Amino acid sequence: MFKEEGATHKIEELGEFGLIELLTKKVKIRNSSSKLGVGDDAAILNYSEDKDIVVTTDLLVEGVHFDMVFTPLKHLGYKAVVVNVSDIYAMNAQPRQITVSLAISSKYSVDAVEEIYEGIILAAEKYGVDVIGGDTTSSLSGLMISVTAIGEVEKGKAVLRSGAKENDLIVLSGDVGGAYVGLTILQQEKEVWKVNPNSQPDFTGKDYVLERQLKPEARKDIIALLQKMGVVPTSMIDVSDGVSSEVMHLCKSSKVGCNIYEEKIPIDPTTYQEAREFDLDPTMCALNGGEDYELLFTISQENFDKIKGNPNLTVIGHITTKESGTNLISSGGSVIPLKAQGWNSFSKKN
Amino acid sequence: MFKEEGATHKIEELGEFGLIELLTKKVKIRNSSSKLGVGDDAAILNYSEDKDIVVTTDLLVEGVHFDMVFTPLKHLGYKAVVVNVSDIYAMNAQPRQITVSLAISSKYSVDAVEEIYEGIILAAEKYGVDVIGGDTTSSLSGLMISVTAIGEVEKGKAVLRSGAKENDLIVLSGDVGGAYVGLTILQQEKEVWKVNPNSQPDFTGKDYVLERQLKPEARKDIIALLQKMGVVPTSMIDVSDGVSSEVMHLCKSSKVGCNIYEEKIPIDPTTYQEAREFDLDPTMCALNGGEDYELLFTISQENFDKIKGNPNLTVIGHITTKESGTNLISSGGSVIPLKAQGWNSFSKKN
Repeated sequence: MFKEEGATHKIEELGEFGLIELLTKKVKIRNSSSKLGVGDDAAILNYSEDKDIVVTTDLLVEGVHFDMVFTPLKHLGYKAVVVNVSDIYAMNAQPRQITVSLAISSKYSVDAVEEIYEGIILAAEKYGVDVIGGDTTSSLSGLMISVTAIGEVEKGKAVLRSGAKENDLIVLSGDVGGAYVGLTILQQEKEVWKVNPNSQPDFTGKDYVLERQLKPEARKDIIALLQKMGVVPTSMIDVSDGVSSEVMHLCKSSKVGCNIYEEKIPIDPTTYQEAREFDLDPTMCALNGGEDYELLFTISQENFDKIKGNPNLTVIGHITTKESGTNLISSGGSVIPLKAQGWNSFSKKN
Repeated sequence: MFKEEGATHKIEELGEFGLIELLTKKVKIRNSSSKLGVGDDAAILNYSEDKDIVVTTDLLVEGVHFDMVFTPLKHLGYKAVVVNVSDIYAMNAQPRQITVSLAISSKYSVDAVEEIYEGIILAAEKYGVDVIGGDTTSSLSGLMISVTAIGEVEKGKAVLRSGAKENDLIVLSGDVGGAYVGLTILQQEKEVWKVNPNSQPDFTGKDYVLERQLKPEARKDIIALLQKMGVVPTSMIDVSDGVSSEVMHLCKSSKVGCNIYEEKIPIDPTTYQEAREFDLDPTMCALNGGEDYELLFTISQENFDKIKGNPNLTVIGHITTKESGTNLISSGGSVIPLKAQGWNSFSKKN
């Protein structure tokens, strides 16, 4: 496409993945210590004889990734660590170090920053990582947290997005859609609060979905479980942008297709009920909601017996050929092409 | 000090270093792979038999670290890489990988982001590092670049801030103060431009100081030179916040004092002349200006003959005992205690 004179492309039109693809196409790898660059949950570095080092980074921006009206600062610090270690687990690796950079506007007090850091340190303890560095600076407006996580995995044992093979089973840990429904509730309460600042929200019975949104956990336990079971996934990704988007990433990287079965997608009863109360389709929340930080992975069929019946793991579909496309098989049996309607920070209307 | 009821501490009162000290005092190191944590130019990781891995991260925020009125986007991307690899060189290490995270408001076009990335890729080529990952997201206002750099150094050969010994010589690469004087010129031209947007600034003869501010370079060459000379510094730091502040960091970490000689501080003639035109004291620009990205290091006296007469290296003083304090010996012979008047993003009035 030719650019009109004087016109500039809008970032929203490209979206995050389009932009990253555009920016990184000129990136060259020149060092032998860089084993895998951009394009997976983490990069892989080759510095050691017996280990691979994995590195990932994520940015949380006020007003885009979190809303200070309903996000407790300690939870925010905790979540900033979780979203990063989740990417490390998605490589089948163990997180060891993080760096934490904060940009903070003058509206925040030292106490506020200390609260954020309390959450960071709590998460660091929980996931066994060391805070080894960072940067702290002021910002003209709002708060921003940039975390880089470093981890390790036995040489050659990192699980990439690109290893899925035809007939592999697609497995999801835990349940999905809760974080999105939790966000919907919080956003509605914010609107109520804006009209009547004295209103007290009633969150009775909604704890599960609120916690999924405000204090997600990374699935360290699933990596341990798989190791105990002797199951090595053929491919893996964490669910940050929604199951639909993540399945498509796996299929694209692995050059395969898939069938996902609507009726198999694990949805918690609270998520289901709260979605219905908001006139939302629970399946759509589960497929496109994002921020669940579950692990989505593929295993060869011969490993099915090992995971069968485990309450933490659900087979939601299987890998097909690239030509078959990436499809959702609805409860009624219809074949619907998956769409990556995952959350896109650039399409947000601000 | 007791906090008044309802009062909260202001970040400006603590400053960046005070805040970092406060936040990181509860940080614990639990992994054997974390060899050195917060408190030097970079952290050191122990993942390999024969190498130490070093990691550093720096955040550049619009309106705080750069002004879009006079900062070319390509230069900005370049500088974001330089400030990070400079920290890697300050460990006596070689940078190998970087991650780059961008938060961008909707006022920026795709073309603008591509320009930033061009600068990033140009710097990556120049310093031989690979862009291995990152994150790209929208922001509610302004632009923010967070870079993490990873490098390597032969096991045990990293140079820390803490190794300076009494009688060691204090050496500075290149010259200092230029970046600050360059910034002063650009800020003045911005004021002129605000009054008369059609005005054309005359930058004749000011190229050197403007380039020091807008397109600084990291001293890769100095690390190579020292290696060639067979000189291993006893301590080292890069000059990002001003010579005065950095010398005090070295002395604090090494538990020593110092005498710095005003007449020895290397100042470029352009820097000197332009400072004078702005009624600034060139020595104060050199000591407190910051952003020069030169290397400041200490060597034992027996290495003096090796560096003597090299135009890139200047002995500016020597290490004394902690009890003697950190002093500037003025050209007139007065002993003036050094003050860390280095640039502090939190004391900026926005």
